[in-house]
Amino acid sequence: MYHLLKGKRGIIFGALDENSIAWKTAERVHEEGGTFVLTNAPASIRLGNITELAQKTNSQIIPADATLVTDLENLVEQATAILGGKIDFVLHSIGMSVNVRKGNHYTNQDYDYTEKGWNVSALSFHKVLQVLYKKQAMNEWGSIIALSYMAAQRVFPDYNDMADNKAYLESVARSFGYFFGRDYNVRVNTISQSPTATRAGQGVKGFEEFIAFSEKMAPLGNATALDCANYTVAMFSDLTRKVTLQNLYHDGGFSNMGVSQQVMEMFE
Amino acid sequence: MYHLLKGKRGIIFGALDENSIAWKTAERVHEEGGTFVLTNAPASIRLGNITELAQKTNSQIIPADATLVTDLENLVEQATAILGGKIDFVLHSIGMSVNVRKGNHYTNQDYDYTEKGWNVSALSFHKVLQVLYKKQAMNEWGSIIALSYMAAQRVFPDYNDMADNKAYLESVARSFGYFFGRDYNVRVNTISQSPTATRAGQGVKGFEEFIAFSEKMAPLGNATALDCANYTVAMFSDLTRKVTLQNLYHDGGFSNMGVSQQVMEMFE
Amino acid sequence: MYHLLKGKRGIIFGALDENSIAWKTAERVHEEGGTFVLTNAPASIRLGNITELAQKTNSQIIPADATLVTDLENLVEQATAILGGKIDFVLHSIGMSVNVRKGNHYTNQDYDYTEKGWNVSALSFHKVLQVLYKKQAMNEWGSIIALSYMAAQRVFPDYNDMADNKAYLESVARSFGYFFGRDYNVRVNTISQSPTATRAGQGVKGFEEFIAFSEKMAPLGNATALDCANYTVAMFSDLTRKVTLQNLYHDGGFSNMGVSQQVMEMFE
Amino acid sequence: MYHLLKGKRGIIFGALDENSIAWKTAERVHEEGGTFVLTNAPASIRLGNITELAQKTNSQIIPADATLVTDLENLVEQATAILGGKIDFVLHSIGMSVNVRKGNHYTNQDYDYTEKGWNVSALSFHKVLQVLYKKQAMNEWGSIIALSYMAAQRVFPDYNDMADNKAYLESVARSFGYFFGRDYNVRVNTISQSPTATRAGQGVKGFEEFIAFSEKMAPLGNATALDCANYTVAMFSDLTRKVTLQNLYHDGGFSNMGVSQQVMEMFE
Repeated sequence: MYHLLKGKRGIIFGALDENSIAWKTAERVHEEGGTFVLTNAPASIRLGNITELAQKTNSQIIPADATLVTDLENLVEQATAILGGKIDFVLHSIGMSVNVRKGNHYTNQDYDYTEKGWNVSALSFHKVLQVLYKKQAMNEWGSIIALSYMAAQRVFPDYNDMADNKAYLESVARSFGYFFGRDYNVRVNTISQSPTATRAGQGVKGFEEFIAFSEKMAPLGNATALDCANYTVAMFSDLTRKVTLQNLYHDGGFSNMGVSQQVMEMFE
Repeated sequence: MYHLLKGKRGIIFGALDENSIAWKTAERVHEEGGTFVLTNAPASIRLGNITELAQKTNSQIIPADATLVTDLENLVEQATAILGGKIDFVLHSIGMSVNVRKGNHYTNQDYDYTEKGWNVSALSFHKVLQVLYKKQAMNEWGSIIALSYMAAQRVFPDYNDMADNKAYLESVARSFGYFFGRDYNVRVNTISQSPTATRAGQGVKGFEEFIAFSEKMAPLGNATALDCANYTVAMFSDLTRKVTLQNLYHDGGFSNMGVSQQVMEMFE
Repeated sequence: MYHLLKGKRGIIFGALDENSIAWKTAERVHEEGGTFVLTNAPASIRLGNITELAQKTNSQIIPADATLVTDLENLVEQATAILGGKIDFVLHSIGMSVNVRKGNHYTNQDYDYTEKGWNVSALSFHKVLQVLYKKQAMNEWGSIIALSYMAAQRVFPDYNDMADNKAYLESVARSFGYFFGRDYNVRVNTISQSPTATRAGQGVKGFEEFIAFSEKMAPLGNATALDCANYTVAMFSDLTRKVTLQNLYHDGGFSNMGVSQQVMEMFE
Repeated sequence: MYHLLKGKRGIIFGALDENSIAWKTAERVHEEGGTFVLTNAPASIRLGNITELAQKTNSQIIPADATLVTDLENLVEQATAILGGKIDFVLHSIGMSVNVRKGNHYTNQDYDYTEKGWNVSALSFHKVLQVLYKKQAMNEWGSIIALSYMAAQRVFPDYNDMADNKAYLESVARSFGYFFGRDYNVRVNTISQSPTATRAGQGVKGFEEFIAFSEKMAPLGNATALDCANYTVAMFSDLTRKVTLQNLYHDGGFSNMGVSQQVMEMFE
């Protein structure tokens, strides 16, 4: 609506279906004039309906397993070729815990699963960054965002090993963000989003109740996927060039609440 | 340039001269289609050249001492009358330490000066918020910003009692932000800006050296007043509706640096 | 029991009655071999039964209004004379909001009350530090503690303007702690304690319910006044010499919880 | 000297030589009346001189690779048998980056090395906790500590992938600490220690210069290995029972400094 991203090119990871934050972001980026390639793991492409999104946004899909450096190299090469230049924005919206899927409690991890979840959810972001960095594929003043969650700072018992993965992810954003900033004037941040009713979120035990709790705690209520897409557009735009190494809370104020009146009322 | 603030009305405190962050913000808000009144203390109006800014941005000046509730009440009444409706955005860019001006070291405060500095720099924000809240003068999804500095979290020896004032200011943003969010869907945040060569900044001892240090530490260098104006536009816009109670670092990454290579080189 | 404070001399502010954290601290410090003077405002001395504590711990009471520099100067002079040397430890446990007492909501402050509460609860700590600093009254490796509460970081709606006062207090600990560390090898910290059923705590609206909420959230439950006294003994001892400028959470883990299972059960 | 740990039993990981923090901690714990088993990876046992420490402290060594659950199970079984009861304290002082050893820059990681470093430095802590938890091997009010470093929060360019490992480690302390607290009244914390001239620290590029920088920044200077041992004793003792889920800065104040006067002088 504002042409905020006119002329900007990007890569969007992780759109599965119309509930995905990455899906909403792709739609909003398209409206703002940005062009991009969509990518996801082959299994996720089969599972969702990303081709519909590609048609709506006039974009191509390049399958890539984000744990495989060769796939990422191919992705970046193709993306720059298709889009006709270096990359201005990247959204990393990838997360998966095998322990959660298999119903293993946090105190009863299978460490092969833990390793796989860490590789997919956290190390994949380093791999994306390293491929972009080595290929010098980012334009100056580009913006790279990964989606995170406040379990990286505080305990949400059912979030399981994803909490530790998000802590690692946020650390990668800071660590690599330094070199991207210093060498290429590119910013790297994470957005710490409200719990969102995506397919990934729904896998977490007791998710409905948790959404309700969070809604009562946050003074503005939970941020939706569309809210997050809007915020991401702002963080991709030229208005936020000097924000980097940050973990940006986008959660209706939840993160700085001790307790709300609405939650206290349940204790009366 | 993007019409991001088309139809939005606001109040901008603290524009003194063309180096002021508030000045740059007023210019950028004007470009983005927002209308506003300018305000400052009578003494600051005489000291600077705010009438020039008012002409450029086609806005009116309403003098107000931000420590006086009656002045603030008058300001809000006049602003809504002049602008033709409730307020969508507010910038609080006010700070002054008498101890700094008088050359009193932090360990040798004159407590009458400390009280005055706190009243002007920190409590004034509560007064602004309380007047807006009582008069129900903010539109839904409005955005209120106060400028802060990282001395609220970490020690910068020459920043003196302004550090404590900024800590209080940021706390007011959280405390009052809860009620503004819950009752009116209005967001309240502080921006923790890089050291900036404004007239206020220049009053701090050793400021030039400090700017140089900060520039070497931040991977993207210091954020300028214009950068801050751009970021503030994003925070006033509808793209960031669910961000509240936050202290937003806008500093080229300084806040999350332990040490940079450039700084370490001075120790080799 | 461990003779951890044998030979150490101190000043303890704020013991009112046997529920006070300062009271429990005085008892524990006495058991650990420390000697001290007790002090409080004249009105608080009349209100409580501090003379009983003085007898039990074989210590003297020196009345002082902590907002009056002259009172504090007299206190420090007398304390060093009575105790026979410089000071090793100080506990600042002082807080009072007139707005809370008068039932003013946070959004409806009387600013004369706000100023008085800030002076008593926050600025008093600067005054204590400044008097000790100027008089060079602290021994090397001494330890100064002020009690705080997590409302300085996060919103607890009923904590009112005490939240902002605690934010200021914690900032003073950092700001002044730098100079005390650099010049005298003295450490300055705040302890962010669980809500505690002291006379001051009981003044806060909805305090019983809040204690219950906090108990359900913290994995170890709320820390008691005696727990806090034990922790303060550790922070006064020589075992913690290099901890400074910190806000130390002593709260059974509450501060790093997003939500506990027990709280979630109320949403099912 | 104070008998603070009289009757308490523990496990100490990671003593290599007399510069190790774990070594100093073992000595201090012994002085305070605690008994313990020492453990390290077989290769580290051969590399250092831990048998000397075992003799001095009258303790046994049980080799264990902390990445192997079976080794950890054997360790815990033997430790409780040797010490004659459940465990009261655990120190995890383990860290190693293959990328650092091989000279790989952070932007040029070999991901097999990254995985190995994460497994040794971060996941090993989860494994230790999970074995202790499943075997119900901790006594009530026991205390578990892992050593960390501030690179988990802020960028130190030469700290490489250890920064991300420490972020993961600290997250594990919070996540698992919740369950240990709730179910067994056991506390879990990390200590974020000053850079220390241990054998591990010396592997980091530019370490000497960094120690010097840190010394100039921290108001009390860097905390030594012996300081850390003393602090750990306090955290193992019954004086700190309600501290949990915390990352405890033990760094002479470095973590809350923006800049010190001594560092600024280099920019004048």
